[in-house]
This record gives sequence, C-alpha cells and structure tokens, in this order.
Amino acid sequence: MTQVPTAAVVAVALPALPEVRPGDDLAGLCIGAWRDLAAAQPGLAPIHGDVLVVTQKVVSKAEGRVVDLRSVEPRPEAVEFAGRFGRDARQVEVVLRESAEVLRMERGLIISRTRHGFVCANAGVDASNVGEADTLTLLPEDPDASARALRDRLVAAFGVSVGVVVSDSFGRPWRWGIVDVCLGIAGFAPLADLRGQPDADGRVMHATVVAIADEIASAAELAAGKTSGRPLVLVRGAQLPPGESSVTAQVVMDPRDDLFR
Amino acid sequence: MTQVPTAAVVAVALPALPEVRPGDDLAGLCIGAWRDLAAAQPGLAPIHGDVLVVTQKVVSKAEGRVVDLRSVEPRPEAVEFAGRFGRDARQVEVVLRESAEVLRMERGLIISRTRHGFVCANAGVDASNVGEADTLTLLPEDPDASARALRDRLVAAFGVSVGVVVSDSFGRPWRWGIVDVCLGIAGFAPLADLRGQPDADGRVMHATVVAIADEIASAAELAAGKTSGRPLVLVRGAQLPPGESSVTAQVVMDPRDDLFR
Repeated sequence: MTQVPTAAVVAVALPALPEVRPGDDLAGLCIGAWRDLAAAQPGLAPIHGDVLVVTQKVVSKAEGRVVDLRSVEPRPEAVEFAGRFGRDARQVEVVLRESAEVLRMERGLIISRTRHGFVCANAGVDASNVGEADTLTLLPEDPDASARALRDRLVAAFGVSVGVVVSDSFGRPWRWGIVDVCLGIAGFAPLADLRGQPDADGRVMHATVVAIADEIASAAELAAGKTSGRPLVLVRGAQLPPGESSVTAQVVMDPRDDLFR
Repeated sequence: MTQVPTAAVVAVALPALPEVRPGDDLAGLCIGAWRDLAAAQPGLAPIHGDVLVVTQKVVSKAEGRVVDLRSVEPRPEAVEFAGRFGRDARQVEVVLRESAEVLRMERGLIISRTRHGFVCANAGVDASNVGEADTLTLLPEDPDASARALRDRLVAAFGVSVGVVVSDSFGRPWRWGIVDVCLGIAGFAPLADLRGQPDADGRVMHATVVAIADEIASAAELAAGKTSGRPLVLVRGAQLPPGESSVTAQVVMDPRDDLFR
C-alpha cells in the first residue's frame, strides 16, 4: 500500500472479468468487479468524480459487435491486398466494410476513417483478445451511447455520479507507438477548455483545450497493461470538465478544421 | 488520503517551484521539491521505478532556451503572416527559425517539424507561463540530454533508479484537444514492444507497441493541470520498459514510415 494525497490521480485496474460474450450484461460485470475491488479496498468504493475506463473490446463483445469470419465473403480488392501482404482476405473485407473512407492501404496496413469519424488502423477491427480464433470485434455502433448506458447502470447501482470512458488503442502520425484514447464518454465533457483563463503567470491562454478524456484513457492503460486481461480501470482524482458528453460531437474533428493533417 | 494498492499507477504533483530563470539549478529545485513532498508524505520518497515528469517549459527556462522578443528582427514573410492574423511578427519569426520544415501556415497557426523531428504547433515556441511579457521559450536543444542530466542528479541525490520524462502539450490530427507527450526521456525506454507476446487469449500480438512514456506524460498532466504552476509530477507504478532511452531515436518517426500522415 502507498498513501497518496487525495489531490493525486490514481488509476487502479479492477479485478479481471471472465470472457465477455455477446449479450452478456457488461454493466452487471462492471458493478460486480468494482464491488470486489471495494471489498478488498474500501477506500476504492465508488465516489463522486470517479471514472470507470472500459476497453472497447469488452463493450463490443457484450454488444454483439463481433463477426464470424466464416460468414465473410471477401471482395476481389480484399483478396488481392490480403494476398500481397499475407493477410486474411476476410479480415480485410471486414475492415473495408467498417471504413467510411480508406485513407491509406499499403504495406499490409489499412488506415481509414470510420463512420464515427475516428481515424485508425483497420477501422478499429481487432482480432486479438477475442477469445475465439475466427472472430473479429468491430467498434461499437455508438460508443457515446455505450458509455451512457453503462453509466446509467453504475449511477443507479452505486448512487454516486461517476463517469465512464470507453477506450481503445490508436496509432498516430509522426510518433511510433499506440496510446489509449477515448471513443465514448458519459458523465463529463471530454475537453477542458481553458481558453481565456489566466495561466500560472496570469497570462491569458489562447489555445489551451486539453483532451482530458484521452489523457484519462492513457492513464488507465498504464494501470491495466495490454496482456493482463483487465479491461476495467478506475481513474480517480482527475478534474472532470463539466458539460455535454460526446466524443463524436466534441472530439472528432471535421477534416476541414484539421491543420495537423 | 486514499489507500491504493501498490499495483496502481499514481500521479502526484510535487510542490510548486519558484519562477525558474536561465541558469537556475533545475535538478536542485526538483530534488528539493521531491524532498518536501516526501517530508509531508514519507511514502512518496523516491523509490526504484518512479518517474519524474518535468514540463518542457521549466527545462527550457533553466537551460536559457528563452528569446527576448526585443532582439528579434522579423523577416518580411513573418510580418505579412502576423499582420493577416493579428499575431506578433517577432513571435512568428522565432517560430520560423525553430522550424526545420513548415508543414502548414494558415489561419494564424503554424504547424512545423522541429529539428528534433517533432511535429507541433508553433515549433514548440511558447509565450504562456514564461514570467515576463516579452520573452518566449524554445524547446530544449536536446530534450533526451536534458532528461539524462536531470536523472543523473536525481539518482546521485536519492540513490535509487528513477526515470525522467520531459513533457510538452501537443495537438494532433483528427481530434480536438492537446495531450501531453514525452519529448525527452532517461532511465527507461519510451516504447513497450509487445510484438510476439501472447495477449490475454494466448494469441500473439502483431502490432502492439505501446507508447508508455507518452501515456506517462498524459497521466502527469492530469495531476498537474495547466494553470497550477506545478511543473513537476511524480508518476509511480507504471511498468517501465527497459532499454535504450531516446525519444528522437525511438519515438520520432521517419516521415517515410508514417502511414498515418
């Protein structure tokens, strides 16, 4: 045990979940896991301002956003691309179906924009950690709605206002390595807009909109790790921006506004 | 106080520093601040595997990477661009000097690649939090070297192997909001390369290289906030990848490898 000031930010992985299958009650599993954590560590029972970070993978599985590869008929383009790079053509087919726009398709990698507006590798389609060899997970249809539904259940069960972040690991330009970001949010706003506030020198900040929800997702990843089978992380102590909660409405950038592209 | 399992990741802001000026002994200030924290909270005295996250701003100030605007003679291009968007032409001039390559220059914003290879707004040149109205901070000449020098002093003072991350807030494509990333590192490797390891289902992961140091920088930002004047954050509990420590050698991507651009 370590004693830390309450001003600190703490990320704690909840106990591992059993394999999640389509139709499972994910909210019930989350509530049970958090209760188990609190039984071992009463100080970690839910309190106002806590955030439960849930990986996209278990959300997608519970929502049935899973594809059985045996049911997939790849289009010729998928067969050709898969053949060139030693990939499974049916998997490529699913990625293309999940892509609103393919941005790059080379060296075996597909970078695309999903219908939600997320730009990521393979349109978020994932084969790892799915449990069965011939299935893929797709991103949730509406990750904000997934987060809201989960939050409603948590608030009802615990009687305190907690937030929810649905997270996934995305690559990014210019830098190697993936970082976890927020795909769906409930209970707080994803961005802290500090524009117009004085900084530590009393100078007004002009361009400081901080992606708090993405930073919370990244902090959670540090606590969970990739190989641990722990898809739930409690993040406590972050200053949560109040206001509307929507990643697609507030974080996803219209390409016309995007000077970083 | 909250009791947390030692397996958790904890980010705690160190006590605020006084205004840092060129030539100040930043390592000495860090050692003093950490001792003050440990005096109040003995459990937070440095231990093996701790990471001290230091904002670029105080590193740059201590290293004298500060420009007095009164000494800057803007080129005609800077005057023209500044005039169109209500910016200070001398500030634009400094940004152009710090840019190895300007990627975008429109709507008042300059996105460029620095000599280190970082792609960011205004080449990392910053006017906020500098203390005096007519100065700008530039990025450190070599943030990895800054981190190494700081780490050497911390290890000598505390006698334990701690890591150091020099952090800054960067925008990114496709998503609104800035997140803190790692510009310089010492004591551990910035990336956890999990390729070839089995995931939670025993399936080998093919594309999982996690940007641990960037996630640590983001977690630290959650604890410090932007307006607090707290440039130092202790991050404890992250699994630090062993190996070479260099952001420019390991994280900065050669544009030819960058399918996300």
